[in-house]
Amino acid sequence: MGARGTARILAGAGPRVISNTPMPVRHFVKYTFLKVDPAWRRLEWERRAEDKREFIAACDDFADGHLLRAFSLVGTRGDADLMLLTQAQNLERIHEFHVVLAQSGLMKWCEVPYSFLAMTKPSEYSEESRLEVRPAHGKYLFVYPFVKTRAWYALSADERWRIMQEHIKVGREYPSVDLNTSYSFGLDDQEFVVAFESDNPADFLDLVQRLRTTESSSYTLRDTPTFTCISCSVGRALGGLDGAALTVTETVDG
Amino acid sequence: MGARGTARILAGAGPRVISNTPMPVRHFVKYTFLKVDPAWRRLEWERRAEDKREFIAACDDFADGHLLRAFSLVGTRGDADLMLLTQAQNLERIHEFHVVLAQSGLMKWCEVPYSFLAMTKPSEYSEESRLEVRPAHGKYLFVYPFVKTRAWYALSADERWRIMQEHIKVGREYPSVDLNTSYSFGLDDQEFVVAFESDNPADFLDLVQRLRTTESSSYTLRDTPTFTCISCSVGRALGGLDGAALTVTETVDG
Amino acid sequence: MGARGTARILAGAGPRVISNTPMPVRHFVKYTFLKVDPAWRRLEWERRAEDKREFIAACDDFADGHLLRAFSLVGTRGDADLMLLTQAQNLERIHEFHVVLAQSGLMKWCEVPYSFLAMTKPSEYSEESRLEVRPAHGKYLFVYPFVKTRAWYALSADERWRIMQEHIKVGREYPSVDLNTSYSFGLDDQEFVVAFESDNPADFLDLVQRLRTTESSSYTLRDTPTFTCISCSVGRALGGLDGAALTVTETVDG
Amino acid sequence: MGARGTARILAGAGPRVISNTPMPVRHFVKYTFLKVDPAWRRLEWERRAEDKREFIAACDDFADGHLLRAFSLVGTRGDADLMLLTQAQNLERIHEFHVVLAQSGLMKWCEVPYSFLAMTKPSEYSEESRLEVRPAHGKYLFVYPFVKTRAWYALSADERWRIMQEHIKVGREYPSVDLNTSYSFGLDDQEFVVAFESDNPADFLDLVQRLRTTESSSYTLRDTPTFTCISCSVGRALGGLDGAALTVTETVDG
Amino acid sequence: MGARGTARILAGAGPRVISNTPMPVRHFVKYTFLKVDPAWRRLEWERRAEDKREFIAACDDFADGHLLRAFSLVGTRGDADLMLLTQAQNLERIHEFHVVLAQSGLMKWCEVPYSFLAMTKPSEYSEESRLEVRPAHGKYLFVYPFVKTRAWYALSADERWRIMQEHIKVGREYPSVDLNTSYSFGLDDQEFVVAFESDNPADFLDLVQRLRTTESSSYTLRDTPTFTCISCSVGRALGGLDGAALTVTETVDG
Repeated sequence: MGARGTARILAGAGPRVISNTPMPVRHFVKYTFLKVDPAWRRLEWERRAEDKREFIAACDDFADGHLLRAFSLVGTRGDADLMLLTQAQNLERIHEFHVVLAQSGLMKWCEVPYSFLAMTKPSEYSEESRLEVRPAHGKYLFVYPFVKTRAWYALSADERWRIMQEHIKVGREYPSVDLNTSYSFGLDDQEFVVAFESDNPADFLDLVQRLRTTESSSYTLRDTPTFTCISCSVGRALGGLDGAALTVTETVDG
Repeated sequence: MGARGTARILAGAGPRVISNTPMPVRHFVKYTFLKVDPAWRRLEWERRAEDKREFIAACDDFADGHLLRAFSLVGTRGDADLMLLTQAQNLERIHEFHVVLAQSGLMKWCEVPYSFLAMTKPSEYSEESRLEVRPAHGKYLFVYPFVKTRAWYALSADERWRIMQEHIKVGREYPSVDLNTSYSFGLDDQEFVVAFESDNPADFLDLVQRLRTTESSSYTLRDTPTFTCISCSVGRALGGLDGAALTVTETVDG
Repeated sequence: MGARGTARILAGAGPRVISNTPMPVRHFVKYTFLKVDPAWRRLEWERRAEDKREFIAACDDFADGHLLRAFSLVGTRGDADLMLLTQAQNLERIHEFHVVLAQSGLMKWCEVPYSFLAMTKPSEYSEESRLEVRPAHGKYLFVYPFVKTRAWYALSADERWRIMQEHIKVGREYPSVDLNTSYSFGLDDQEFVVAFESDNPADFLDLVQRLRTTESSSYTLRDTPTFTCISCSVGRALGGLDGAALTVTETVDG
Repeated sequence: MGARGTARILAGAGPRVISNTPMPVRHFVKYTFLKVDPAWRRLEWERRAEDKREFIAACDDFADGHLLRAFSLVGTRGDADLMLLTQAQNLERIHEFHVVLAQSGLMKWCEVPYSFLAMTKPSEYSEESRLEVRPAHGKYLFVYPFVKTRAWYALSADERWRIMQEHIKVGREYPSVDLNTSYSFGLDDQEFVVAFESDNPADFLDLVQRLRTTESSSYTLRDTPTFTCISCSVGRALGGLDGAALTVTETVDG
Repeated sequence: MGARGTARILAGAGPRVISNTPMPVRHFVKYTFLKVDPAWRRLEWERRAEDKREFIAACDDFADGHLLRAFSLVGTRGDADLMLLTQAQNLERIHEFHVVLAQSGLMKWCEVPYSFLAMTKPSEYSEESRLEVRPAHGKYLFVYPFVKTRAWYALSADERWRIMQEHIKVGREYPSVDLNTSYSFGLDDQEFVVAFESDNPADFLDLVQRLRTTESSSYTLRDTPTFTCISCSVGRALGGLDGAALTVTETVDG
């Protein structure tokens, strides 16, 4: 979990003290997963093109001033085709975007099989955390909702801090993998939404397998469903629904 | 969990004795979550306008003499679009309202993915509890069904009272968050329906995360699904289904 | 759990011995929960009236010689609209009724989200049990499927008997609540179907909450979903699907 | 679990040694549960009659040389209407039957909510097991998928054998109940498919309740869903979908 | 788990050391399960033939340079009809294939009830593992997603290695069963996708039942759903959806 801005771990400095002062830079983060009704693909080409244009217009409007990222899940999941990641300081702005989006022709044929609402927040265990989701900088985003056991929260803050340092140390051995954690306590069904970004799925797989043997792993209650999301433009994500594939630049076995 | 009427915690006074005398002021509380069939958005504008007018008329009729509050979930959940919170002393009145509502054009295209029936009741642990849901006084309502472990109920009343005092004490450090608890034992699948009201989601998130480390938290069996509900008029909640967004008053990142 | 015919608890007499002699009076009991497709409400009034008439005719036919009771769940649940409780000594008669019912127009638009098959049986712990469901005698029926932990069955018969006496004793403090237990071992997914009848939901709620602190409660594996069912005629239950509400006789907050 | 051919329990003889020699008599057993779309019942009578004729033809073809049994679940379950039990030594033959069946008009309106694939196999604990499902010999079949806890498999073979003898002994006290167990390890989601046959549901219910108190019961991980299936011809099972009930021969309360 | 290329178990040599050097030969493996809408079977024959031709064309295109295998689940499962197993070094190529496939007429009537994404990886416990899925070499493929308990990962590497040797030893006693394990940590909901290949379901069933008694089995958290997949050409798998069965070569009871 490598090149992350001003990464400084205060190893040995003990748990951080979190103040209750206002944090104006905290943002809402919304993960919206979409599944298109197969019947939509049976519509005329022109109808589908218009439906997609309206969807893109809604995204463009929001993206003018806010972060919006699109991902395709075609070929990686069976229960979702597309994921939109949006961010705003104001929850009403997230709401308004989804209202406008719902007016697009495409959304009249979509379900939302998964939806995660979260906020950014400074980490108790690391100063590497960010208060904003960063623009696209990796080919893949690996996302899952995360809930810890109550036994975890019964540990002392010192003990939790110690255990997390091992977790963070292992992560640092995989510098090609970058982490975004956001918080959902009380806002949605999970406690955290964890999103790893990487160009190299094999590295990420190896990291996750290795983390299973750390002490912190034993306090995981739930870390599924797990989504492999292919980063792309909104236009390309929509193209993946009924035809145009992402450009493929294969090396060996293409 | 702050400015709540005549809040008086009898700290150190031990568990309250609940009498079995009639409590005429207890109310039924009903949370009805609605999800609109995407096909409805494909209907003509006039049809949808009429469908919504009939829905509003049913709500207006009930609201004349009873509490009814509306919330939008567009942008916060994927499996529900709208929530109605209704209250009456008489269960038949709640039933009658839902019968009339079902006659509206909009309900002919709606499912009810979640539904919670509960009653108000004095708390064993605090004198701050209310026997009526209050009119709207916050921008957001955070709702979840709640079930405690059977280990909780095996504790003595004194022990449960002691543990709850810590919980209540932490809550009081977040005066911007207000709590309504209602009871569903034997009436519905959960034991309690918990509803927190606040203008500040970040404060509420911090409170819930902090409560994880209290002793009472270890007795939680289930506290999901968790809904972030945006308080608004019935008309605006319906507007969110097919077009008109809530008015957005953004400060910085709008 | 009060005025129940010839209630006689043989307190202190130890577990009852159940003989294996034929019990000709045992009955099959069937709880059938129905959910109407919202599209049905979009049909013409005449079509719906005819659909309901056919449904009523099937019920009338069965009710001539067997117990049949109807309940509305409109306003108390989101996943079921109507419940029929039928009883017969002969399982083929229950089967035949459901075949005839399925021919009615209304059932061509219905799903059966929940279904519980059970039989009456003398209780091991109380002589208050009945071998027939009684005709309607309360405004509400509270129904849930019930499964005990295997730890319960590992106790000795004496120990189980002792624990159940406390449970029964608490129940007797709520004379407005009446209990019907039927048995589903091997016939359906639950072990018991528990049905409480009362005119007073608040009393029942208080009883269930109080029972959580008894020893027997710790042996509960599953007691959901829990249904609040409003007792009414078949005609009124059908009226609740598309219009005519039950007559409301409100006292205070009408 | 009574009159089963050459029943001989080698009580006290210890666990049986299972050889790895080829067992040519082992059969595949398939339980296919069907649920008819309510919309099918809205089709014309002639269309439905033809749909059923095609279904019967597919069954007749398979039954010429293989065991096929039909059961109605109308009135006993809400999530399935019909069950077909088929048996063949060859899995391709089971596959082929389902391909042909799918071509019938009726299957174009059916879902398969439950499906269990299994094989017959000699029991480790009893010589009463059979390698073929027997033709119909009881009015009811009670079926459930069965999974044991891993703690069971951690016991020694001797210990498991000892525990099963108590289980078998209790079963023998109910001679009106006959048992078929088939094995699904690695083939399907369960470990076993258990099917009890009896003319007397009350006896079977009593047996299952009594077995809860045996030691073997504590090693049950899952034994649901549990299906009460009414044995009948294919034609009568289809008649139960849209009209003709099974002939009812009631004694007392009919 | 027999004749697997250059199988060499370094018995007694202790856990293997896995290096972090690039592994260019690792492949992505995708299991895509399809369920056809029953309504598709109601379409005209010509329409269905064209829908299938387009599906085959997409498969042929991918199979020119990559491994693609087809399996029928008709008659073995109720919730899936067909499974495609695809493999590529490049995830974009897997994505692109599913985009092209989705354009085929058949996919406009299909759902994807199950989907497993994984990668090949050298095993920690055996040198028999492969980095590519092999072409068809067995009549049946038995597939399930696999998750181990966190207690497993808390064991030392030496301890895990010791336990796995017993598991591997039992597998070797069933030389007719061949194993492919792929890894999903962080990519999908499971940790592993396990696929056994064999011509003999009875042998495989016996192996899985026998493995239940090994120490490694007690560390299994989830190993369902379990799919019995019949190996065949894409054309035959599609024929199984609406008519033409696989050729049956039965020996005895056909």
